[in-house]
This record gives sequence, structure tokens and C-alpha cells, in this order.
Amino acid sequence: MAPVPDAEATVAAANAAYYAAFESRDLDAMAEVWERSDRVAVTHPGWPTLHGWPRVAGSWDAIFANTAFIQFVLTDETVRVSGDTAWVTCDENILQAGGSREAGEDLAELQGGLVDATNEFVLDGGRWRMVLHHGSPVATGDAEED
Amino acid sequence: MAPVPDAEATVAAANAAYYAAFESRDLDAMAEVWERSDRVAVTHPGWPTLHGWPRVAGSWDAIFANTAFIQFVLTDETVRVSGDTAWVTCDENILQAGGSREAGEDLAELQGGLVDATNEFVLDGGRWRMVLHHGSPVATGDAEED
Repeated sequence: MAPVPDAEATVAAANAAYYAAFESRDLDAMAEVWERSDRVAVTHPGWPTLHGWPRVAGSWDAIFANTAFIQFVLTDETVRVSGDTAWVTCDENILQAGGSREAGEDLAELQGGLVDATNEFVLDGGRWRMVLHHGSPVATGDAEED
Repeated sequence: MAPVPDAEATVAAANAAYYAAFESRDLDAMAEVWERSDRVAVTHPGWPTLHGWPRVAGSWDAIFANTAFIQFVLTDETVRVSGDTAWVTCDENILQAGGSREAGEDLAELQGGLVDATNEFVLDGGRWRMVLHHGSPVATGDAEED
């Protein structure tokens, strides 16, 4: 028999699926990651908190339309499971370019950034579904020079 | 018999205790709010995430020492309970002054700000204890003018 994966591992896989959906800018894949309910919430860096799946989905649609390229390298990832709820904290080391890929815009202006994230999941029928994402920019030496 | 308070109400009370401890800059009261364990984490606005109660407590000590006055008005507070875990999202409308009260510094330079927060609690022996706080600045029109 194959070993049963522990809860931390399945939560980590759900967290990885979130970043894979973001990198591929795939709204269908992102919808699979989330619990599509009224209680979900997202706080994108610098944005006010948006509540409910329709608004959360709308934010992904807008972000994907204005992101030609994005890549995440996660560091300092921690997974905490408490019953049927879990939260992940991680540092998102981001390389990205704005604009639309379809528009054939120049990807030369790649920008780096560091965002610290909290991702919350709830177990639902054997699947961990995201109910909350909160990302916030980490101030760097560069920012202080501005 | 007095009615048993529902879970949402007791979580909201724990959330209020957190802001009361912050406003009074009382480290003992803040320690009562938190689960003093290795799994707790805090992400202050612009800061990297700090893990474990010793580092979390150290951050409160530093913040309290450098805050002469702080007042929170919470808006758009939502409480979600899932078993023995709960998370709160709220907008922190902040009025604050830096410096140390003990130093008798001028409080004339009050500054306003908006931080969106995620606060996570776990039920432990009948008490909801904070295990995570994540606050991030919301960009405003003023900021865009800079």
C-alpha cells in the first residue's frame, strides 16, 4: 500500500497548485484551488481586502490580464495544520513583467520583488481549498532610497 | 441561564482584546492574547514574517517602545469560524504618533493610515488564542502622488 500523505504534505501541494495557477495565469486552475464561496477573501499587495468568490475571481482576471510574465520562488515556507484548517506562510520571491502577453509587449522590463504571504486552506471533501490569501510587500533597502 | 455566546462573538472579543493590548502598548496583555508557541507568526506592515513567540514578542516590545500613541477604528470586520480555528479580516483605520511617551515627545505629528489585517485564532482550552497576525498597508491616493 502506498503511504497516506500527511496533512502538511497535502496542504503544501495545494499551496503549490495556487502558485502554479498564478504563474500560468489560468483562471480555471485558480478557481480549482479556491473554495468558491462567500467567505473567501483576498488581500493583494497594496489592495484593500476583497470578499466573496465573485470579487476574488474578478481580481485574478484583472491581474492575469495585466501580467505578461510572473515567476515565484518560495522561501521560508511553513505549513500549520489545525484540524480541518491550515495556514501557510511563505516569502514570495517574484520576477515579473507587466503588460499583456497577447499584445506582444516587450518583456525586457522584468522586475523583482519580495512579498510575504499568508495562505489559508480548509479541508472540504478530502480537498484542501484556499479560503484566504494575504500578500504584502516587504520593504527593502531599495525602497528606502526612494 | 445566560445564553452561551456563539463562536463568532467570542472570536470577535479575542480580536478586540488584541487591539486593546496594542492601543495600551501593554506587553503582558498582548502575551495573554497570543498562543505563546513556536507556530505563531506575525507580519507587520512592510516587515518580513517573524516566526515563534520570542520573535513575535520582541517585535511588540520594539513597536511599543517607538509608539507614543496609537488608536484603531476597525471597519469591514468579518469573522469566520471553522471548527477550532477562526480568522478575522478587518480594515485598521489608524491614528498614531511615533516616539516614546516617556520621552515626553511632541504628539503633534499624528499620522493616519489604513492597514488591512488578517488575524488567526485557535481555540485552546476554551480560549481563542492568536496564532497569526498579518497587516499590510493599503495604497491610497496620497501615496500615489508621492
